[in-house]
Amino acid sequence: MTKNRPTILITNDDGITAPGIRKLIDIMHRIGDVTVVAPDKPQSGMSHAVTVAFPLMLHQIQNENRHLEFSCTGTSVDCVKMGIKVVLGRKPDLVVSGINHGNNASVNVLYSGTMAAAMDAAMENIPAIGFSLDNYSLNANFDGFEKHIETITRNVLKNGLPPYTCLNVNIPYVKPSEIKGVKIVRQGKGNWIENFDRRIDPHKRDYYWLAGHFVGSDNNEDTDTWALNNNYIAVVPIHIDLTAHHAIDKLAEWDFSHES
Amino acid sequence: MTKNRPTILITNDDGITAPGIRKLIDIMHRIGDVTVVAPDKPQSGMSHAVTVAFPLMLHQIQNENRHLEFSCTGTSVDCVKMGIKVVLGRKPDLVVSGINHGNNASVNVLYSGTMAAAMDAAMENIPAIGFSLDNYSLNANFDGFEKHIETITRNVLKNGLPPYTCLNVNIPYVKPSEIKGVKIVRQGKGNWIENFDRRIDPHKRDYYWLAGHFVGSDNNEDTDTWALNNNYIAVVPIHIDLTAHHAIDKLAEWDFSHES
Repeated sequence: MTKNRPTILITNDDGITAPGIRKLIDIMHRIGDVTVVAPDKPQSGMSHAVTVAFPLMLHQIQNENRHLEFSCTGTSVDCVKMGIKVVLGRKPDLVVSGINHGNNASVNVLYSGTMAAAMDAAMENIPAIGFSLDNYSLNANFDGFEKHIETITRNVLKNGLPPYTCLNVNIPYVKPSEIKGVKIVRQGKGNWIENFDRRIDPHKRDYYWLAGHFVGSDNNEDTDTWALNNNYIAVVPIHIDLTAHHAIDKLAEWDFSHES
Repeated sequence: MTKNRPTILITNDDGITAPGIRKLIDIMHRIGDVTVVAPDKPQSGMSHAVTVAFPLMLHQIQNENRHLEFSCTGTSVDCVKMGIKVVLGRKPDLVVSGINHGNNASVNVLYSGTMAAAMDAAMENIPAIGFSLDNYSLNANFDGFEKHIETITRNVLKNGLPPYTCLNVNIPYVKPSEIKGVKIVRQGKGNWIENFDRRIDPHKRDYYWLAGHFVGSDNNEDTDTWALNNNYIAVVPIHIDLTAHHAIDKLAEWDFSHES
């Protein structure tokens, strides 16, 4: 370890064996000293969940001393917390999460374990980036996007991020040569149209699979959804203040005296 | 059911038998037609998690036809989605979540299943409120706060909320007579100082309990943490746009051309 190499903590939510995180580890080795703490099983859709009802375990992965690596029985947010407190014993210079199999643009950021890991680092004021590829398959090809990921990461290390902020980076799943560049954008509006697929189990009980599809409702050129659909890498700065500041003055006019 | 009574969907994250949701159900009966879909077990700290890896079940609770009530095997967000799509078959006029046993002020909003339920309703543009009491005990006394909860709820039904916005309501755990009123505030800054309590299991393996305590770092009078500490009910409008809009111009100056 040389003093100039940043300490980088890596996690994801697809689990430690997912191709996305293996690619991200390779890329980060070019940039800094890598430590990996990632879930031992898929934790997609777990959002900012933390494990408080039962204890957590770490299992060290052997990799010929290439870097320190542990699988963790918890969520991606648990992994960030354990990586900092138990494995490193100090804050890293950077937390990177991903590369997620599937996009986390628009409101998907709210369900995403990948982004929750980055946001948890932001809560500790550690620079953090969540990377996602717009393809849900575990067989997606991550080759060709390395330079973009490296450039974005080096920018964060060089320039820093505003306090308590992280980046949500979504990469379109097109031929790498077709990528038009990187665009700084805002979270686009959209929502999931859910449906529940009802089935009957062998004991004659109803059970339901959650399914659905995302519908974007915001095609402005300054949104992550537009950028992705137009072959740009979408970079959204994300913060942890959920206050709808614009609504405060209006609500302050309400009458909260009791009616009776 | 009269036409003027709003349809109110109720959930929580402490589980369907928690005293907090039983109290909330009683209060909402004064205001509208109640339907309850809540987790069959505690789901605290589950944030915006959704269940996609396995199917969900509903179990109808008998309550002498007072209202329609189901326990659900999933998270509080699953409960909102199933309540709308499977139980009601349409959007309710209001979603209320809680009363949570423990406060969800400051960054706790990011970990909270109670608030994730309200935010999921906001994603569907349904008015929603998450109520929390600043006491983590299952034996906390919820008596005396009813009028405040009713007044806030009636305000939301009467005035509406800005699009894609919900309310995070935190109630101080003081004698109800000591409550000074309702304050519209912003999310205060703060963070958790975590530590992991390391133990050794009967098989000689290390395991870790996540523990910690919250430290507020923002004592301005316009914050939820200040309001709570000063005997006000704290109401924060919460939105689902996580973009750090103030950071976009600065990031747009970065150089994303590759160095090599």
